[in-house]
Amino acid sequence: MNKKDLISIMDYSKEDYLRIMDMAADFEENPNQTLLEGKVVASLFFEPSTRTRLSFETAISRMGGRIVGFSDSGSSSVSKGETLHDTIRMVSQYADLIVMRHPLEGSARYAAEVSSVPVINAGDGANQHPTQTLLDMYSILKTQKTFDNLNIFMVGDLRYGRTVHSLLMALSQFENPIFNFIAPEELQMPEEYKIYLREKGIRFFEHREFTDIISEADIVYMTRVQKERFSDPMEYEKVKNVYILKNSMLKHTKPNMRILHPLPRVNEIATDVDQNEKAYYFQQARNGVFAREAIISHALNLK
Amino acid sequence: MNKKDLISIMDYSKEDYLRIMDMAADFEENPNQTLLEGKVVASLFFEPSTRTRLSFETAISRMGGRIVGFSDSGSSSVSKGETLHDTIRMVSQYADLIVMRHPLEGSARYAAEVSSVPVINAGDGANQHPTQTLLDMYSILKTQKTFDNLNIFMVGDLRYGRTVHSLLMALSQFENPIFNFIAPEELQMPEEYKIYLREKGIRFFEHREFTDIISEADIVYMTRVQKERFSDPMEYEKVKNVYILKNSMLKHTKPNMRILHPLPRVNEIATDVDQNEKAYYFQQARNGVFAREAIISHALNLK
Amino acid sequence: MNKKDLISIMDYSKEDYLRIMDMAADFEENPNQTLLEGKVVASLFFEPSTRTRLSFETAISRMGGRIVGFSDSGSSSVSKGETLHDTIRMVSQYADLIVMRHPLEGSARYAAEVSSVPVINAGDGANQHPTQTLLDMYSILKTQKTFDNLNIFMVGDLRYGRTVHSLLMALSQFENPIFNFIAPEELQMPEEYKIYLREKGIRFFEHREFTDIISEADIVYMTRVQKERFSDPMEYEKVKNVYILKNSMLKHTKPNMRILHPLPRVNEIATDVDQNEKAYYFQQARNGVFAREAIISHALNLK
Repeated sequence: MNKKDLISIMDYSKEDYLRIMDMAADFEENPNQTLLEGKVVASLFFEPSTRTRLSFETAISRMGGRIVGFSDSGSSSVSKGETLHDTIRMVSQYADLIVMRHPLEGSARYAAEVSSVPVINAGDGANQHPTQTLLDMYSILKTQKTFDNLNIFMVGDLRYGRTVHSLLMALSQFENPIFNFIAPEELQMPEEYKIYLREKGIRFFEHREFTDIISEADIVYMTRVQKERFSDPMEYEKVKNVYILKNSMLKHTKPNMRILHPLPRVNEIATDVDQNEKAYYFQQARNGVFAREAIISHALNLK
Repeated sequence: MNKKDLISIMDYSKEDYLRIMDMAADFEENPNQTLLEGKVVASLFFEPSTRTRLSFETAISRMGGRIVGFSDSGSSSVSKGETLHDTIRMVSQYADLIVMRHPLEGSARYAAEVSSVPVINAGDGANQHPTQTLLDMYSILKTQKTFDNLNIFMVGDLRYGRTVHSLLMALSQFENPIFNFIAPEELQMPEEYKIYLREKGIRFFEHREFTDIISEADIVYMTRVQKERFSDPMEYEKVKNVYILKNSMLKHTKPNMRILHPLPRVNEIATDVDQNEKAYYFQQARNGVFAREAIISHALNLK
Repeated sequence: MNKKDLISIMDYSKEDYLRIMDMAADFEENPNQTLLEGKVVASLFFEPSTRTRLSFETAISRMGGRIVGFSDSGSSSVSKGETLHDTIRMVSQYADLIVMRHPLEGSARYAAEVSSVPVINAGDGANQHPTQTLLDMYSILKTQKTFDNLNIFMVGDLRYGRTVHSLLMALSQFENPIFNFIAPEELQMPEEYKIYLREKGIRFFEHREFTDIISEADIVYMTRVQKERFSDPMEYEKVKNVYILKNSMLKHTKPNMRILHPLPRVNEIATDVDQNEKAYYFQQARNGVFAREAIISHALNLK
């Protein structure tokens, strides 16, 4: 199968990453390249996700493509007991490309095997969300001008947060990264990722406190600490106000440091940070459109 | 900020009204002016509203624009606890224009302050619904050829009906209007609007009965009397069949009189009125497409 | 009224069928004929139906048309108590064509009477689903090269299955068909259809067993046997595994025999059939796009 699916960030080589970055920059300069004229893209969201869906649908629209699909499984055949296999087989008869979000881990890979057209994973449960990683990378490259020698701080839920795992894997392909993990005990970076880093000889540091240690950071990647992740509610109460980024904490950070967040945020970044020029999460959302235009181009060999 | 938001009908001057009327007439002659080619409009309906949404989406489509968005908040990030601030900041990174419907009064003004692209209010709770007023005005101008010296009858729920309030404010900018208010005691026109009319020296009359007094009307603007507006259910029972327009009541009305209704109606206009040439509410809905094409053009300086 | 509505399969003559087949073949060769440029199609799904909706929306998109509408009645004005009459009157002010799915039998015919633009019935309850029949016919013609002298087996729920009823009516217009009905006692072909066939002198045979009798078939049309159709649950338990098509049953069938199914399937076709070249149901879904492009063209006189 030489279909260019994007299911996991590891489906792409370092060369693919760089090619996507180049194309994203090109789309940023001219977002309305109508390469999708005459094409139909199926946007299948088996669970709601406004941000990702609107970002993809904006990308498709700017490229002149047409969209069919659904924004939650309630209005899909799933409610009639149809299997994912049959839904995907059917939709791949209609569309030139499938963008899929599904609550089940592994569903995207399965869909890609069944589909006759390329599948782009827009998130499959706690598993993978590779287009988020590529827009994160594009945001890092735009602000830091390089992927090499970066000091990346990851904060919050590092145990269940799929975005930090994928970003870690992707950035490990580049020269000499340093990772700093800041998380409560229950939400630490899983052992498998630490083993991976050790094997590659990549330096990383773990912290429980979220204080002025971020002064060394090039990128501070914030994530949400969700109550339902804690087995003991008291544990959550103890840490819930610890992993909040406040404007006062940015005083001694590097001039070129930038704050990323996959959004939506709840309270983990105080709103007084929004005015700070180091706050980059809304521009990051904007970059998502260009990164997704690049990913779609790549999947369909449009450039 | 010189963004051309449309949040309240009072955001527009008399000159703006007339310009919108001119443009609407131009769009009615040729609805498919593809001025939105290459543009993406976010259609954010935090509560369902078929009529308004389909009317806007038809206008955008006829102008060659693309639409992203949602038709109720269930499939939006709101369910993940995202603030309106963040949703709007995000969406204004994607789209060239935001059309927003939201149940909360004041939400549209707030969205306009947060957004980097123009915001058009498609209804914010009981507060404002300015595009409805502009299509009402276009319908009046088309049928009466003038905004001056008109005798406007407003019938039904004049207390909570935002459409009659906005229409009253807008028409008061023109020469010598007369208003007649026909409403049950609990649903009378609020004092503040009557004070406004008195200060401007505009004549108005109040009636409890809905009989043949409409013989003087140029426009009869019907609205729904909803049960849930009454504190005492018995009050509703007493009046529920009083404010219903029937075909027999139209016999002695002016030849050029026209009946408007923002729709949806429940039973306040008997269906035998539909065949009468004075029934104008479905053409009024049609006018909504042209008025909204004009409003979008105005917001984005397309003409 | 010379609007070209499609409400029932009997609205079309034999000549219409053949014209649709010709046009469908033409669209299959070139699906992206942009005959709908500048046109807006209302896609009104008062109940969810992914397959039919996506198929129609793909057809409209490939033809360059724009879509407005809703995918379930929850986000429509229906929830505000608006009548179907008013909804259709309103929408026909906006759109050039209405595609409608509604749970109520007869609703499509009523909508066509009220609408000023053509209405295509995308299913009205248990009543009619004519576009499914036309895509079934196109699938039969593509695989058998003729509508004459065909031996059609219909299997499963022949009592409530609207697709088999409509297909029977349509194929009866052609030369010398033979029908074989395979169904449990409670779900047999209704008497009225058998009377119709007898009056036209068309041969048909009824079977309770689903075994190797399909060796004579040109087409095996499978349908779902639903538990809720049985008054006695024990009856369902007795037959539920009887009307399942398995790959082993295909050994002695004609080389050119093809299996159709309107989809979604639950378990009535074993998945091992999918690999068999006689399995045609996914291509059948694909044919639906071309058939619907033809139907839309016909409704709007585009060719």
